This record gives sequence, C-alpha cells and structure tokens, in this order.
Amino acid sequence: MTTTTVPSDLDQWLRAHHDEALHELFEFLRIPSVSARTEHRADCRAAAQWLADKLSASGFSTTLEETPGHPIVLAEWRGAGKEAPTLLVYGHYDVQPAEPLELWTSPAFEPEVRDGRIYARGSVDDKGQLYLHVKALQAHLAVRGTLPVNVIVLAEGEEEVGSVNLEEFLEKNRERLACNGVVISDSTMFAPGTPSILSSLRGLAYVQIDVRGSTSDLHSGMYGGAVVNPAMALARILSTLHDDNGRVAIDGFYDRVLEWPAAVRTQMQSLPFNEEHFREEVGAPALGGERGYTVLEQLWTRPTCEVNGLLSGYTGEGAKTVLPAVSMAKVSFRLVPDQDPKVVEQLVAAHVARVAPPGVTVTVTALHGGRPWRSELGGPLHDAGVAALHAAFGTPPVITGEGGSIPVVGDFERILGAPVLLMGFGLPGENAHAPDEWISEENYRQGMRAAATLLDCYASASAT
Amino acid sequence: MTTTTVPSDLDQWLRAHHDEALHELFEFLRIPSVSARTEHRADCRAAAQWLADKLSASGFSTTLEETPGHPIVLAEWRGAGKEAPTLLVYGHYDVQPAEPLELWTSPAFEPEVRDGRIYARGSVDDKGQLYLHVKALQAHLAVRGTLPVNVIVLAEGEEEVGSVNLEEFLEKNRERLACNGVVISDSTMFAPGTPSILSSLRGLAYVQIDVRGSTSDLHSGMYGGAVVNPAMALARILSTLHDDNGRVAIDGFYDRVLEWPAAVRTQMQSLPFNEEHFREEVGAPALGGERGYTVLEQLWTRPTCEVNGLLSGYTGEGAKTVLPAVSMAKVSFRLVPDQDPKVVEQLVAAHVARVAPPGVTVTVTALHGGRPWRSELGGPLHDAGVAALHAAFGTPPVITGEGGSIPVVGDFERILGAPVLLMGFGLPGENAHAPDEWISEENYRQGMRAAATLLDCYASASAT
Repeated sequence: MTTTTVPSDLDQWLRAHHDEALHELFEFLRIPSVSARTEHRADCRAAAQWLADKLSASGFSTTLEETPGHPIVLAEWRGAGKEAPTLLVYGHYDVQPAEPLELWTSPAFEPEVRDGRIYARGSVDDKGQLYLHVKALQAHLAVRGTLPVNVIVLAEGEEEVGSVNLEEFLEKNRERLACNGVVISDSTMFAPGTPSILSSLRGLAYVQIDVRGSTSDLHSGMYGGAVVNPAMALARILSTLHDDNGRVAIDGFYDRVLEWPAAVRTQMQSLPFNEEHFREEVGAPALGGERGYTVLEQLWTRPTCEVNGLLSGYTGEGAKTVLPAVSMAKVSFRLVPDQDPKVVEQLVAAHVARVAPPGVTVTVTALHGGRPWRSELGGPLHDAGVAALHAAFGTPPVITGEGGSIPVVGDFERILGAPVLLMGFGLPGENAHAPDEWISEENYRQGMRAAATLLDCYASASAT
Repeated sequence: MTTTTVPSDLDQWLRAHHDEALHELFEFLRIPSVSARTEHRADCRAAAQWLADKLSASGFSTTLEETPGHPIVLAEWRGAGKEAPTLLVYGHYDVQPAEPLELWTSPAFEPEVRDGRIYARGSVDDKGQLYLHVKALQAHLAVRGTLPVNVIVLAEGEEEVGSVNLEEFLEKNRERLACNGVVISDSTMFAPGTPSILSSLRGLAYVQIDVRGSTSDLHSGMYGGAVVNPAMALARILSTLHDDNGRVAIDGFYDRVLEWPAAVRTQMQSLPFNEEHFREEVGAPALGGERGYTVLEQLWTRPTCEVNGLLSGYTGEGAKTVLPAVSMAKVSFRLVPDQDPKVVEQLVAAHVARVAPPGVTVTVTALHGGRPWRSELGGPLHDAGVAALHAAFGTPPVITGEGGSIPVVGDFERILGAPVLLMGFGLPGENAHAPDEWISEENYRQGMRAAATLLDCYASASAT
C-alpha cells in the first residue's frame, strides 16, 4: 500500500453533488425513525423504504428483510464478479428518542446547519455516517458504471434497542452475506482533522454480589456487635478487588491480557490528549486508576473493575438503627483481548468465595457478558482504510480504542468470519444520544471521499 | 443490706387484692392510648385521667400536667417528712400502635389471660409495669396509712413517640421533682424466675459518609479505569473501620471505654445463655463481632461499628453500566461508658479523612448521638433493688445490660441528679412492639411484691 489520493473522477462527482448529498441526508433525517417507541413503528419502516429506494435507484438489488421488529435494508451489487472480494457496509437507520425536546436549539427532526455542523437527531448516529457510504457508492456507479469490488449494504433499524434481531439474521443469511470485510462508520474521530481507525473495544463481565447475614433486618442496638453486618462484609469483599496500585487483585485476571504493539502504544501516548482537561470535564478532584498508564491507555487498552451499584439497609433521610439482613453490589469488569467474560466471572466468584468472611452467605450471579475486540491492525481492509483516510483528510489516521462495547462488531467477525474496519466520522461532543446532536459538514464531505476511495484501495490491496 | 422477705402485712394485702389488681389493669389496658395517632388523642387523656384518679383515690396529690402533646400524670405523697428520702417512680401510659391487627390472637385492647400471660397492647410496655407500682403504693397506704419514704409518680404519655416533651418538663420542674432516686420498670428480666437489674445501656453516634467522584454519573465503559469510583472508594473506607479481630480500628476509639467489675463480668459469663440458640434465632450461618468476649458481653458491654445503610449507582434489576458520581453509607457506633458521642464523631471524621483515597471528596455528617449509661452498682437505691427483688422472687437478681438506648434514663440522672434503678418485669419474647404483647401474670404479681418491698428496703438502706 502506498499513500494515494482521492481518485479525481470520484472527487469531481462528489463535489458536484454535494448539495444533493446534503439535501438527501436532510430528507432522511426528517423521518423520526425512533426504534424504541411503538408510535414510530411506521416511521422506522418509512426510513428503511427511503434508504432502499436510494440504493435501488443507484443500481443495487434491494429488499426489506422482515424481522420480528423493524425491517433490515439489504442491498447487493455483485457486478465485480466471483473472483473479486466482497465488502459489507453496515449501518443503522434508527435513531435514539429525541427527548428532552425542550433542550434542542432547533427541532430534532428539522435538520439545520449552524457553524458548519448539521444538527438533527441521527445526524451522526448513524444516518449521516451511513448515507455517506451510499453517496460514495453512487459516485462510483454514476461515474464508472461499476464498483471495483462486490458490495453488500446492510442497514438495520434496531441498533438503538440492542440489535435484538441482527445476530439471528446474520446466522440465517450466512451464505448470502458471505464477504471478505465489513466496514462500519458509527464512531468518532479522535479530534477534528485527525482521521481515526477505532481498533479496540472493551468487553464486559457484569456480576451481582449478594450478601446475607441474618434472616431479617435486626435492631442494631439489640444485636449489633455479635452478628456479622452484611454491608460491612460486602465493603470488605469489595476492598479486596484492587491492590494499592489500582490493579485488579483477582488471581488470574490479567493472564490473558494481550500487550499492544509498541508502535501503537507509542502513538497513543503521543496523541494530543490533555488529562487535566479530561479531569475538569469529569469534575473529579483527581484522576485515578491503574498506575503506569496514561488515561487513554487506561480507557482503551486496560481492563477495569467498577462498582456500578450498592444497596443495603436504610438509605432514606436521617438515622435508622437497622442491622441489615442483606447487602448487594453490582460489579462489572471491562475486558480487553483476550479476556473471556465467562472465565472472568469464574475468577471473580472464586475470589469472592475466598475472601468472604464467616457469618454471611455470599452469592455471585453473572448478569451480562460481552467479549472484547481488537482489530488485526493489518491486512487488505485495514490497509485500505488507512490509505483512504489518508487520501481524504491529507493526514494518516491514528489508531484509537474505545472503553465501551459495540456488540455487533463481534457478531460480524464471529458469524461471517470477516475482519471489521471501524472508520468513523463523528467528533467529540457530538451529542450522539443527547439534545443538539450534530455531525460536522466537513466530516460528512470527507467521509464520502474516504468511503469512495476505500473501494479502490480495498480492490488494489486485495489484489496484491 | 441483708436479705429480707416481703413484709407480711403488705404481702397479705396484695394477695387479698390480686383479682382487683388484675381487674383494674384490664380497665387501664382497654383504653387505646396510642400516642402516635391523632385519632387517639382523647384516649391518651382518658388513660392519664384514669391513672390520676387511681392515684388520687390512694392518697396522692395528683395533677395532669399539660404539655404540647399528651399530658403528664404527676402524683405526690410527701407524708414521710423532709428528712426522709424521696423516690420518683417513672412510667408511661401511652402504647405503641396495635397494627397489624389481624395478627393478634385476641383483640389488642380486650385483655385476655391465656397460659398465665396477660395479652393486650401495653400489658408489659408499660401499663402493667407502671400499675404494679401503683398497687404497691396502695398496699402501703391501705395497710399502714403511710409510706416509708416520700414518693413522686411521674407517668408520661409520649414515651412511644420519643418522650419529646419530657426533658423540658424535667428542666422546668427540677425543684418540684427533686428526689434521691428514680425507679423505672420498663425492661425485661433475663429469664423467667431470674429477677434482673438492668445496669447498662449503650449510647449511639450515628454518621453519614458521603463520597463524591465526578460531577455526574458517567458511562463505565467510556470513563471506567481513569476515574476513581466513589462506591469502591467507600468500600475501601468502610473496610478500614474494623481490624481482623472485629475491633473498631479507629485511633482513640477505646480510650474512654471503662472495664466492668470482675464480679459482674464473671456473673455475665455464667448466665445461662445459649449462643447457638441465639445464632439460630438470628438465622446467620455463624456469629461474629469482637473476639475475646461472649455474645452477652458483646451486646451489653462493648462498643460497635455498624453499617446501617449503603447506596450508590444503579440498584434495580439487571445490569446498568454506570460509574456512579456519588456513594453514601450510614454508619453508627454503639457506645459504652464513658465514650462520648461528640468525641467519637470527631474520631470517625478524622479517621475517614486519613484513609479517604485521592480522586474523591468525602464528607462525614453527624446525624444523631446519645450517651451511654451505666448504673453505679451500689448505693441505697441499687442495694434496695437487689434486696427487694431477692425477697419477691426468692433468688438474687442478676445484673444485665442492654444493647440499645433508653434516652430518658440519662435525662433523669442529668437533670435531677439522682441515680436510676431499672427493675423490669418483662420477659424475652414479650412482643413489646408487636402483635400478641403480653406480661406474665406471675411477674405482675411478683412485681407488685417487689415494688412494695422496695420502699421499705430503700428507707432502711437510706437510713444506714
């Protein structure tokens, strides 16, 4: 792979059709396809149909695939032939609820450009980032009458409600969806002008710890001092989960944690990230966490243990002298490759059983788990992504991670056996799930150029 | 003091009037003087008036003293002369609400004797234990036409709602209520046939610990690992409050804890108390607390630290990946003489400040405090109590403690400067605040004999 530029024929077409791309996106954004609300059921279908029509008109063979929920838009173009690789573009046409409506500067479903930002619910998450791929595909087909690779576009309408029907759809359509790579634009760039490939997502192991002492709540005067207090026992258990350096102190917890390539670590450490600004944004008196890592490394590359909830006894106003019968903590672990949530659950349960004091009964219940993910940082799709972003933005992309999870990424890799490229065009502060959601108009433009270039780069990277 | 017997003249009168004593108590119990309920306001006054009438008829100068709440019955007999000591008998005519009514075997305000127990709301707490003193006074006045000491009877109607007006009444009537001792029968005996003097009550220092990390709740994926978790910080703080032997690990906490006389400790250790039965009653898999002490010593003579409440983050069903902004614990300390709640609050605040981790802001707020109490275990009143109980029950009383607090005890000692004798006739399992409250008919009978004998013993003990 050598650095390339945006092919001039595509570039020219995209420049000429920018107003149209904006106008069409506005149409898409005006459809209030809120997947979480039954009253928007018809709107979700309307958004799916609108998108399907655009893909059909561009030359794709398009269907609405019914699910128990909102339909999946499936568009296929197989004209590159069986020898050519197939790229699957994934996105979602559904959006988060817009409430609280009164906090929007302009109405959530009436798009408006202010200061170079397109404001509307769904602008960045994910209609804008999905539609820029559609325009890139149109550019190829309009200018050249063909695409350099086979392309499948899969747009679901339930991403904001947990992609509840996607996994089954992938399983059932494994052959039809067979592809060599998956590209998803539903994430953010590190900073304006800094194109980014999101290369890692943390996994999750979420457990509940329940501690029981006496059969029922007791009077702390009558019984206190002879009966083990389950809230105090819980505090002592939780206090053993970290050592004094902020490392998780559970035997075996780090056994499967992979080190990152030195070059990536060096690049992460050199990113212009102001930890003091981060602290101010968070509002805490100081930062913490595992010693020996920068904040970005802590968030992107290191596993954690957090208490998400605590409950015991009397929590109202004033004083009540109860010796509680039970206490409860919700505790979750962010995981990094190659930690396995099931294994971590077992390690946690074994640790808690070991440190639990006598006088109480302790149970650990697994509530939720998800595997961590890390991209290969190489191969035709990754290389094509690097080249296309470099071409569109004039600067090479940085490798970023994310502290949270995007479960569909793992589903695509696992079910379709294809690598995933996360090439996002959002920006920090974009209000993805909040009022005044926006996408930078500049990023929408560069995103179309990058997406169009990606196809050429992918074709040539696959050929070598 | 030598052991005595119940004077035969009083004993004879009490035997002859036992049915009357039972009948009158039943009248008293039928008045639903529930102080907590405004609809029972007239009933409270009726109970006060009923009691005042009985005392007047016995020869006492009696008034209803108005308070902002329910009236105080104040009865005085000063016929022993200024040289003679004055004994104040305290009790309360108000009762707890009777709900849940459907759990009573016989109606709460229709007294019934079954298996030697008088069942009714207020039977043991405290109408029965108060009225047995009235009958003892009647016995003296009926048989001898006089009392061996001056006597004041003070019966309040707000004990079950925190004696909210008693302290001010004592302050305002300090001279009129001047006395040499206070006797209160509102507690339980260690076991049937084992008369008991309750000699210690634990005090209380109750604080709330609030921990704040970030300004608002954060996503545990996006921020977890770099921001200090306030629930985890709280757990670590709480885990420092005890050492591994169950002792409170706060500097200076034990500095003012008094040792008990070896004889009392030996007697407590020899009391027939089955710790395994206690464990079964509590329902915990094992007992705990400070090592080196029996359960009774832990409950009666040792200070404690308990978590009464815990709250942070998400506590509903399932998993929510929140990194909480705040966490809260309610923590209380049972105190023993001569610990001071204000001092303990300061020690706790200093300890928490010392162990609080960086990255969070921790505040300690004092919510409630009460001084511990221990009787002198000597002097005319104590000696008279020992002798009278020995005489009535045929066996010497044991010294007991109680884990909880009875705030009025300290008020009497502090404001009137007189020692307090806690000579109770309840029994374990008496359901004082629950359905099917009862007092043993035998204890009601022996209580009258003990109370009558107490006056003679007190007169002679005071004379020596």
